[in-house]
Amino acid sequence: MSSIRNEIIFIGKKPLMTYVTSAIIQLATLPLIKIKARGLSIGHAVDVVQIILRKTNPAFVVGDITIGSESLVSTDGRNRDVSTIEISVKRTKV
Amino acid sequence: MSSIRNEIIFIGKKPLMTYVTSAIIQLATLPLIKIKARGLSIGHAVDVVQIILRKTNPAFVVGDITIGSESLVSTDGRNRDVSTIEISVKRTKV
Repeated sequence: MSSIRNEIIFIGKKPLMTYVTSAIIQLATLPLIKIKARGLSIGHAVDVVQIILRKTNPAFVVGDITIGSESLVSTDGRNRDVSTIEISVKRTKV
Repeated sequence: MSSIRNEIIFIGKKPLMTYVTSAIIQLATLPLIKIKARGLSIGHAVDVVQIILRKTNPAFVVGDITIGSESLVSTDGRNRDVSTIEISVKRTKV
C-alpha cells in the first residue's frame, strides 16, 4: 500500500453533478482521485472529468487513463464481459 | 506531419464487429491505429478496443488514451459540449 490515499469515485446512474461535486470535495484534501465506470456509464465518467476540469480550471489535470474489462454474471446466469475505464484526476503541478 | 501513417476509426452507431473487423484489417499493415468516439459512443469505443485485444491476443496493446470535449451546435441552435475519447492500439513490442 502506498502512503498516498487515493479516493475512488464510481460513476453510476445518479445525476452527473452529484459525482462532480463529490469529486471536487475529495480533491480539496487529496492530491489525486480516480473516476471509475463500466459499461454504459463510461461516457458519463468522461463527462464528469470534463466538467471537473472546466469548473476548476486550471487547478486539476487528467492523469493516467486505463481501460479494461470485467466478467460479470448477468441475471440469466451467463458470463458477460463489461468494459471498464479508470481516469485519474490530479492537482496541476505548479 | 510524421512519416508514420496513423489510421483513425470513428465509432458510430454500426454494430461493434464492423469497427473491430475494420480495425484488425488496418492493424495488419499499420503499427498504430486510433479509435475515436464522442458522447454516448465512448463506451462502445472501449468495447471495440477490448474485443480487438481479446481476438488478437497478444499481438496488440493499448497505447495512449486521451479524453477531451468538443463544442457542437445542436439542432436547436445552441452550443453543447460533448466529451470525446481517443484510444491508440499498437503492435506489442517483441
